[in-house]
Amino acid sequence: MLRTHTCGQLGEGQIGETVTLCGWVDTYRDHGGGLFVDLRDRYGLTQVVFNPPDTPAEVIEASKTLRAEFVLQVTGTVAARPEGMANAKMATGKIELRVTGYELLNKSLTPPVSPSGKEEVPGEDLRLKHRYLDLRRPEMQKVMMQRASIIKGMRDYFAERDFIDIETPVLGRSTPEGARDYLVPSRVHRGAFYALPQSPQLYKQILMVAGYDRYVQVARCFRDEDLRADRQPEFTQLDVEMSFVDQDDLLALIDGLVAKLAKEELGIDVPTPLPRMTYDEAMERFGHDAPDLRFGLELIDCTDLASEAEFRVFSAVAKSGGRVRGINAKQGTKHFSRRGIDGLTKYVAEYGARGLAWFRVEDDGKLNSTIAKNFTPELLEKFGERMDAEPGDLLLFVADQYEVTCKALYALRSKIGREMELYDPKTMNFSWIVEFPMFDYDDEAKCWHAMHHPFTAPLADHLEMLETDPGKCRAQAYDLVINGSEAGGGTIRIHDAEIQKKVFTLLGIDEKTATERFGFLLDALQYGAPPHGGIALGIDRWVMLFAKLDNIRDCIAFPKTQKASDLMTEAPGEVDTMQLKELHIKLDE
Amino acid sequence: MLRTHTCGQLGEGQIGETVTLCGWVDTYRDHGGGLFVDLRDRYGLTQVVFNPPDTPAEVIEASKTLRAEFVLQVTGTVAARPEGMANAKMATGKIELRVTGYELLNKSLTPPVSPSGKEEVPGEDLRLKHRYLDLRRPEMQKVMMQRASIIKGMRDYFAERDFIDIETPVLGRSTPEGARDYLVPSRVHRGAFYALPQSPQLYKQILMVAGYDRYVQVARCFRDEDLRADRQPEFTQLDVEMSFVDQDDLLALIDGLVAKLAKEELGIDVPTPLPRMTYDEAMERFGHDAPDLRFGLELIDCTDLASEAEFRVFSAVAKSGGRVRGINAKQGTKHFSRRGIDGLTKYVAEYGARGLAWFRVEDDGKLNSTIAKNFTPELLEKFGERMDAEPGDLLLFVADQYEVTCKALYALRSKIGREMELYDPKTMNFSWIVEFPMFDYDDEAKCWHAMHHPFTAPLADHLEMLETDPGKCRAQAYDLVINGSEAGGGTIRIHDAEIQKKVFTLLGIDEKTATERFGFLLDALQYGAPPHGGIALGIDRWVMLFAKLDNIRDCIAFPKTQKASDLMTEAPGEVDTMQLKELHIKLDE
Repeated sequence: MLRTHTCGQLGEGQIGETVTLCGWVDTYRDHGGGLFVDLRDRYGLTQVVFNPPDTPAEVIEASKTLRAEFVLQVTGTVAARPEGMANAKMATGKIELRVTGYELLNKSLTPPVSPSGKEEVPGEDLRLKHRYLDLRRPEMQKVMMQRASIIKGMRDYFAERDFIDIETPVLGRSTPEGARDYLVPSRVHRGAFYALPQSPQLYKQILMVAGYDRYVQVARCFRDEDLRADRQPEFTQLDVEMSFVDQDDLLALIDGLVAKLAKEELGIDVPTPLPRMTYDEAMERFGHDAPDLRFGLELIDCTDLASEAEFRVFSAVAKSGGRVRGINAKQGTKHFSRRGIDGLTKYVAEYGARGLAWFRVEDDGKLNSTIAKNFTPELLEKFGERMDAEPGDLLLFVADQYEVTCKALYALRSKIGREMELYDPKTMNFSWIVEFPMFDYDDEAKCWHAMHHPFTAPLADHLEMLETDPGKCRAQAYDLVINGSEAGGGTIRIHDAEIQKKVFTLLGIDEKTATERFGFLLDALQYGAPPHGGIALGIDRWVMLFAKLDNIRDCIAFPKTQKASDLMTEAPGEVDTMQLKELHIKLDE
Repeated sequence: MLRTHTCGQLGEGQIGETVTLCGWVDTYRDHGGGLFVDLRDRYGLTQVVFNPPDTPAEVIEASKTLRAEFVLQVTGTVAARPEGMANAKMATGKIELRVTGYELLNKSLTPPVSPSGKEEVPGEDLRLKHRYLDLRRPEMQKVMMQRASIIKGMRDYFAERDFIDIETPVLGRSTPEGARDYLVPSRVHRGAFYALPQSPQLYKQILMVAGYDRYVQVARCFRDEDLRADRQPEFTQLDVEMSFVDQDDLLALIDGLVAKLAKEELGIDVPTPLPRMTYDEAMERFGHDAPDLRFGLELIDCTDLASEAEFRVFSAVAKSGGRVRGINAKQGTKHFSRRGIDGLTKYVAEYGARGLAWFRVEDDGKLNSTIAKNFTPELLEKFGERMDAEPGDLLLFVADQYEVTCKALYALRSKIGREMELYDPKTMNFSWIVEFPMFDYDDEAKCWHAMHHPFTAPLADHLEMLETDPGKCRAQAYDLVINGSEAGGGTIRIHDAEIQKKVFTLLGIDEKTATERFGFLLDALQYGAPPHGGIALGIDRWVMLFAKLDNIRDCIAFPKTQKASDLMTEAPGEVDTMQLKELHIKLDE
């Protein structure tokens, strides 16, 4: 080894020892007579002093050419810092290394992204282009180490519980449903393509049929979608599947993982079992299937009251099957002026709401608003009671189709929660949403879609609804929600070939198509498939939430931009015509 | 959980307990009055008895419909097997489960691949097509568990040593050298392609520049090559890189890993440091850069003697710069008849040898052969001495270009070693081959190729040879060899941008091309790259060697055939024209 210690390791215990460190020049200060360097590696910083009498004159002279990010191998004696010079903020702050000699391992040009933290962090494009410098920043190194620690924590947890880590293929078969596949042309089979997996879903079910019983994998998955801020073309998921279990077993398993990681990574005690809420309740109370439960501000239904109002916007919606729902921003009148409320109105419009009705609660407890005249005093009082109105509160209502009230009010709730600081951003809230609908009706295409995927089992006592009332049929499906983000999801799978066929039929997948796409799974179900279910957790998302970041790219060593490019390697790039010829494809100009 | 215990868990300690098991019907025997079932899961087998008086009559009746691979949930009482009926071969062989009730969790058609081990294992194509059944065979489950255990052992080893597990991209950039890339057309960037990584080589070097210091990853890699028996289009490697180290540090690190895994997985004590041999010595003594060191049978050079022979085949080769080398198959005359030797001659012809000269050593110590008359008795004696000839030995010689003698004699040595059982196939032999040549000369293209890859550092004292004598220049490169298989390889990398440029020039890569392909690495080297090096171990190969298998596909859950097909999912497959259109490509008909 070129070093005896790391730059984070030395303390008073080593005073007097001769040691060798390797690292990067973080900062340097020329004091005329000599040079002070903070030498940095992944473990920390150590003050390295080129000064007489310890450092020979010619070494001091040579050291004057050192610049930021030069790589050094430094040998010297560990010494206590002079009286009053200790740095309590630095782990090695009580000592310094008095240099006797050094070797310049490498030079550096002036870095366009400074790892030292002394300069402002530049824009993201520059950081991604020079990722080798950006990743040298201690903040990024901390995230990468935390990511590794979280993944190791997950792997250890499952290994202790007899799960087998099995690798599934990356070169798979395209099943054109759900998101768009990344395709890989085959050279050996002219005109044929592999697809990169969107998840190992079918393989893990096959592994259950094959008797593996408890499977786990940290799996790379791929989706060729237009990227939102928190999506990447390739992402990593913790993939789990178990046989001979029901939903409670799987939830309890993940509860334990959450408690372990929250304790190990954040020092938080999370009581288990984690709270569970049905999808229907989540939509009713929060308007969203992954509600942020760090604060209240629940949606309150007032459709019955609205139907009595002379205010036509309310009564018309109420009478035509829509919903009138509101939230009570406690003491919100102080926070939102008239202009502020106009801003909220514009905000909900982005989510499809045609308007935002509001009332201020006056000191006398009465509801006041420009539209108050359209309500009888008695009705206003009923609204006030329903909304638990108190002086200073701001009541906000959306009257619209159910889905619109959900979207607009959930967005509004999130915005107000954030702006009124209704929660401590350091809080972590974990919960389960369960009993998702099996199907979504697609009004345009006039057909049912699987809400999770077509292999999801219905609730045992909803089996009949597959035929009688698919819209009401609820699934053995569960999502883990952390701070209002979906951090994982899973289902109990169908292990009965007959039920699987029924679901395919309902989804409009005829037998021929089912065989073409999932024939091997249907075959497998006929050869002794055990009851099984599983879950997948989004690891990038977990790291983002645990590290309190809001950019998914900061959680990934080499991420792609929202245009799916790697700015460092300039992927994707052009390839030789010869390569395409071998793959039997041409560009479609 | 649907069970209280697994099928491998019950013993005398549970006698009298009421338990529930889940599993597959491995075998069943109808004894008239009742049924004996061996119930199987991944943990083992348990004998399950449907018999009066424990089992109610209607349960016995129902059980008569059970068939192989049906999935059961069985409840009953653990009982000692009747006197004399214990099965010492079975972990649960002292007990049986007397059934009080059961639930049929699923049926099975008659399986085309039988997991019970009672029927012959069918051909590989059928096994791969019904992989869910093939993977249910205990032999396959054992390999999959051993694979998981080896990988976990590797991960733990590096985690204990402060290595950070960092994920590198699968969607990368094509660098058309070395093997052929798998390409992925980009939808967002018309005409551009990603490539799947042949290894994370450049990323891990970037991580060293970024200061991560100790990196490890179990990485999926891809090569679109025509497949040999032990190659797969996607394979898994343990990828390691370290900064501030030299070759000895890396070898010592892997020595420790080898010792740990050999002990944990095989119960073998492997002394470290592992033996090291230079490439030149390996080629001279064995004719191969990954020699099987489980036995001797070394190549012995006789070129000097051959030049004195009247036998023209020998003397002509010796005088024209070729080599005459032989091996001594100790006591081989008993093993190989004249016809046997003819077989060996045909065998070496497959490796390019134009002939195989041989001598039997007679009881009087004299060399005898049809060609003996072309040698003086004195010369024959010298050959005998050089070859350490003893009565009964068979001496075999190839006279040819150096490379041909290497190939032919290494193949011959392997064949004879195997056929004469010169080693115990259970032995494990680990060793290092070091100091590989930096470059290979391509006679056809009249240019130098990098023997490992263009980022490999030469030996410190060979730096000048880059300019003066590239062919003699040896690299800081090392391969780990297990039982004659290359099980891993690595190099110390070039961290000096100037030397890197020199190597590119020597390889005929001009500045423009270098910038296009590796610009980001060359950039990175200018911003404080530390000295670094690493290694990659082929995990599929390790599993094959540790599990004593000779088919790489048996080490992978879902392998591809030699035609790069997945017979279960039928990947690669056709895709919709719409998909291709979105990717801006067309089939080249």
